[in-house]
Amino acid sequence: MTRKIGIIGMGNVGAACAHYIVAGGFVDELVLIDQNLKKVQADALDFEDAMANLPYHTNIYVNDYHQLDDADVVISSVGHIKLLGGDHPNRFAELKPTGDDVKVVANELKQTKFNGTLVVISNPNDVMTSLYQELTGLPKERVIGTGTLLDGARMKRAVGKAFHVDPRSVEGYNLGEHGNSQFTAWSTVKVLDQPVADLAAKQGLDLEQINEDVRMGGFTVFNGKGYTNYGVSTAAVRLAMAVINDAHEELPISNYRAEYGTYLSYPAIIGRQGVEQQITLNLPQDELDKLQASADYIKKNLN
Amino acid sequence: MTRKIGIIGMGNVGAACAHYIVAGGFVDELVLIDQNLKKVQADALDFEDAMANLPYHTNIYVNDYHQLDDADVVISSVGHIKLLGGDHPNRFAELKPTGDDVKVVANELKQTKFNGTLVVISNPNDVMTSLYQELTGLPKERVIGTGTLLDGARMKRAVGKAFHVDPRSVEGYNLGEHGNSQFTAWSTVKVLDQPVADLAAKQGLDLEQINEDVRMGGFTVFNGKGYTNYGVSTAAVRLAMAVINDAHEELPISNYRAEYGTYLSYPAIIGRQGVEQQITLNLPQDELDKLQASADYIKKNLN
Amino acid sequence: MTRKIGIIGMGNVGAACAHYIVAGGFVDELVLIDQNLKKVQADALDFEDAMANLPYHTNIYVNDYHQLDDADVVISSVGHIKLLGGDHPNRFAELKPTGDDVKVVANELKQTKFNGTLVVISNPNDVMTSLYQELTGLPKERVIGTGTLLDGARMKRAVGKAFHVDPRSVEGYNLGEHGNSQFTAWSTVKVLDQPVADLAAKQGLDLEQINEDVRMGGFTVFNGKGYTNYGVSTAAVRLAMAVINDAHEELPISNYRAEYGTYLSYPAIIGRQGVEQQITLNLPQDELDKLQASADYIKKNLN
Amino acid sequence: MTRKIGIIGMGNVGAACAHYIVAGGFVDELVLIDQNLKKVQADALDFEDAMANLPYHTNIYVNDYHQLDDADVVISSVGHIKLLGGDHPNRFAELKPTGDDVKVVANELKQTKFNGTLVVISNPNDVMTSLYQELTGLPKERVIGTGTLLDGARMKRAVGKAFHVDPRSVEGYNLGEHGNSQFTAWSTVKVLDQPVADLAAKQGLDLEQINEDVRMGGFTVFNGKGYTNYGVSTAAVRLAMAVINDAHEELPISNYRAEYGTYLSYPAIIGRQGVEQQITLNLPQDELDKLQASADYIKKNLN
Repeated sequence: MTRKIGIIGMGNVGAACAHYIVAGGFVDELVLIDQNLKKVQADALDFEDAMANLPYHTNIYVNDYHQLDDADVVISSVGHIKLLGGDHPNRFAELKPTGDDVKVVANELKQTKFNGTLVVISNPNDVMTSLYQELTGLPKERVIGTGTLLDGARMKRAVGKAFHVDPRSVEGYNLGEHGNSQFTAWSTVKVLDQPVADLAAKQGLDLEQINEDVRMGGFTVFNGKGYTNYGVSTAAVRLAMAVINDAHEELPISNYRAEYGTYLSYPAIIGRQGVEQQITLNLPQDELDKLQASADYIKKNLN
Repeated sequence: MTRKIGIIGMGNVGAACAHYIVAGGFVDELVLIDQNLKKVQADALDFEDAMANLPYHTNIYVNDYHQLDDADVVISSVGHIKLLGGDHPNRFAELKPTGDDVKVVANELKQTKFNGTLVVISNPNDVMTSLYQELTGLPKERVIGTGTLLDGARMKRAVGKAFHVDPRSVEGYNLGEHGNSQFTAWSTVKVLDQPVADLAAKQGLDLEQINEDVRMGGFTVFNGKGYTNYGVSTAAVRLAMAVINDAHEELPISNYRAEYGTYLSYPAIIGRQGVEQQITLNLPQDELDKLQASADYIKKNLN
Repeated sequence: MTRKIGIIGMGNVGAACAHYIVAGGFVDELVLIDQNLKKVQADALDFEDAMANLPYHTNIYVNDYHQLDDADVVISSVGHIKLLGGDHPNRFAELKPTGDDVKVVANELKQTKFNGTLVVISNPNDVMTSLYQELTGLPKERVIGTGTLLDGARMKRAVGKAFHVDPRSVEGYNLGEHGNSQFTAWSTVKVLDQPVADLAAKQGLDLEQINEDVRMGGFTVFNGKGYTNYGVSTAAVRLAMAVINDAHEELPISNYRAEYGTYLSYPAIIGRQGVEQQITLNLPQDELDKLQASADYIKKNLN
Repeated sequence: MTRKIGIIGMGNVGAACAHYIVAGGFVDELVLIDQNLKKVQADALDFEDAMANLPYHTNIYVNDYHQLDDADVVISSVGHIKLLGGDHPNRFAELKPTGDDVKVVANELKQTKFNGTLVVISNPNDVMTSLYQELTGLPKERVIGTGTLLDGARMKRAVGKAFHVDPRSVEGYNLGEHGNSQFTAWSTVKVLDQPVADLAAKQGLDLEQINEDVRMGGFTVFNGKGYTNYGVSTAAVRLAMAVINDAHEELPISNYRAEYGTYLSYPAIIGRQGVEQQITLNLPQDELDKLQASADYIKKNLN
């Protein structure tokens, strides 16, 4: 009866999500929530100051959890990216403070009638997604993380550049933890309709270098501006729209995989119920090992 | 043969322009330029990391002025908004440092073959637009400022709220300097098909309060987050697209008015040649006086 | 919880509405209904054949009235435009057969739980809108017709051409019956911020010729291709989206005006409840007379 | 310096292309050409009647070949679909009359300075694309046909339905002639990250039935409404935008393959130069045989 998204956490990432949603006219109602009332009011007013010059109208609500009662999707973008840094940045630096925030947010959410899908951007992503699911009690399929949807986009960008091809024409996945243990599942990556490993071998390209570029992509952006926001917010909004459209689109995201006993990034079919269907990839042993290692790392940190 | 926009200055405003343009697929080529190479590279990479999840493709170039040779529109968003602040913020606090930047940019632009339309967001807007025109030698009609297109959007937001109406259904203009001397030309403002002054009188609404809200709107946002970007970038992109579409759309922007001997905001018809046609409003004497005072203020500061 | 539109009548107009909606990704669920099952199935399949190449996903349902239970908007585009023709075409030629269709559709609608807003394109528009309201028993504010939203768009196109200005930069209304008795309320029309009558007088332009162009616009298109569809479907979708966005946008549409005792086109504020607020124009006597005549004509034909 | 598309042939397909382009604001200038002047003028006027209610502005030109001098893309949608029909419809029924039209159009095009990419929808598609290339003398890489981009979309729709997945999440190609000899290259088709043949075997699904659905898809739509337009026009506009964006996107389209000595549908990388790069699929022998047979069929009919 209306498209409604809530965004919790109006830092650089949440604000970029909101900007994309308002500019695209994707929803009818947008709920913005942040601990910093002046900041979230400023963003809301700034969006409203854009509306006379936009084609569509979006009704915006500020810091009212009860507006989430009938939201289709809530996006959690709470985080403490400023804590990252140094030579070996690690998303787990955010674990404690973001975890504290997530507890507060989950508790607030539980007191609403929210019954849609929760899309988690907060990092470390798999841990925070897991935490949200436990604390809210929402079904596992309706609590999902953007996970390696972003890493995969970075891989497609890097592979696309190497072969002069649009990122959308590269297929394949990054799997596991959205963090230092994620990896490109090269067995799944194809470009120009060839396994990229074959093509790279022919052309003397080093996949490990591309892999490193993918893994460090976020930190390159982070070091240049102190945060990353456009890539991840675009991924999050695409995921949210797949839910709202009930698209049954396949996307690699953080979802609970029973065989690993944890949330981790793995492709799934996304629709109005969140994860509509799970998928089994035919991975070679070395990639299965990497995935197991990544799963173990997530579980260790969750505890 | 391709839609191409350049954005000079990748602070919060320039980045929001670029985000809107990339997310909307509005152009085929986007040139991003900033003194801070790491920042502009980070934004470019971040946009490229979004592309696997976007419907359209945009080719991005970084810090290459010669890519502006065949640009349709160049947007100047260089600025020093951090200098503003205090109880009585004033866009003229940016005059000296932004003026210095504009001299550098204009000099670089002159060395390209750029022959499109220059859209200036930099503040103080009318002074910087004037400065760009003088320094680049581009025809006056092809150097324009976003001016009060933003103030007008704020007025429409404020009036719309007061009367429970979409900002797009409020008509009317804010005129003069995009700064403290700008004013709402209430004689032009209508809502619910009535002059807003009449309606306000009937309902006991105080137009001066709305006016104050409009004038201080940017500072409310500024105080909440340290800058304003969504409203103004949306206005700038709308203006750029009116040029690129050759839309002949009427928009209140900073354009050179011979009768005042200066750039100031006044509605004009916008198309591929920038200002395609100028307009004469039938303003009452008190608004003419305000406009004259605003023009005098701009000219004084330009000198 | 989802955006859902139903379209009843998949002739050229209904199909163009559906095309615009699917291509724009405006809704999550689209219900298509037509007496000709093979035609509506063909259109649905054709849209589904487009989806692999579109950015967004739309779920389409065919000939299932119960899918309208939770629709936000139902658009009625049933009609018999082929009956029009000859030197003096008149939308009232469709009165009997379309009226019969409307009775069938209204009866089917009544048996659903549909509780949204009904947007009527069927002609003669004011009569059919009135008939739908009576037969469905929906509140008057939630049964509206596209009315002169199209005639106004034609007027803006014609005035825009005469003054080299974008149609969106022409303001003003066409009022009354969406038919031969509709008229341009010239007192409301402004371009270049001047009353168009003044400008036309100065430039020796004949407003009556523009008026004739507006009135005959649809028939010019009709004579060229046997129907008109793009202008009216764009108007209908804009109206539907104003409802779905709860935009509170002002649009001239066919709505029930108590003082005339009939549906006729007059600007209103449109939101989720259909007509959210009515407006009073300050029309000169000659336009009031034309409006009264138009109202009388509608009422006569409704009986 | 502007995005410009020409569409030649304003039947149901050309008009649907134009509608999508205008509604999406994809170009700044649109040139519409048809032998039936009244029809093309009617469509142009109808689009202009839509513009007051659309977010973007498009300048439309009618029946002026010289407006194609600086077009980025020209779409040929001339055709005689009405000639098809009967129990065994065959796109080659259009060969003679459409071929005659193509000769006229190609001759007119040669007299312009058009130097962009020609996108051919006209059927039989591979023959007409070939004919255009010969007659215009444009480089082979800049004359391409929509070919099996549509058949592939139909395959993705059919496979997607069978496995409850979005068509965009099905990968794979239809190859060869865009006609009765086209075939789904099942070796390339994957859904849920599995070869579809494996999945279908497990679930007792008959791929041949899906194949038949794909092959007859167009005729199902054709039989329901007398033509097909939405699927193919969406494919054509996507292809045109890949050219205009210089996207380097991989799409299966009709392009000249030297090893077969003919145009036929095979994936290629599409950018501003049309075909930017060709691809080699690793097809099994039975699919290579089908492709050879399809190529032979096209060549026989071209002569």
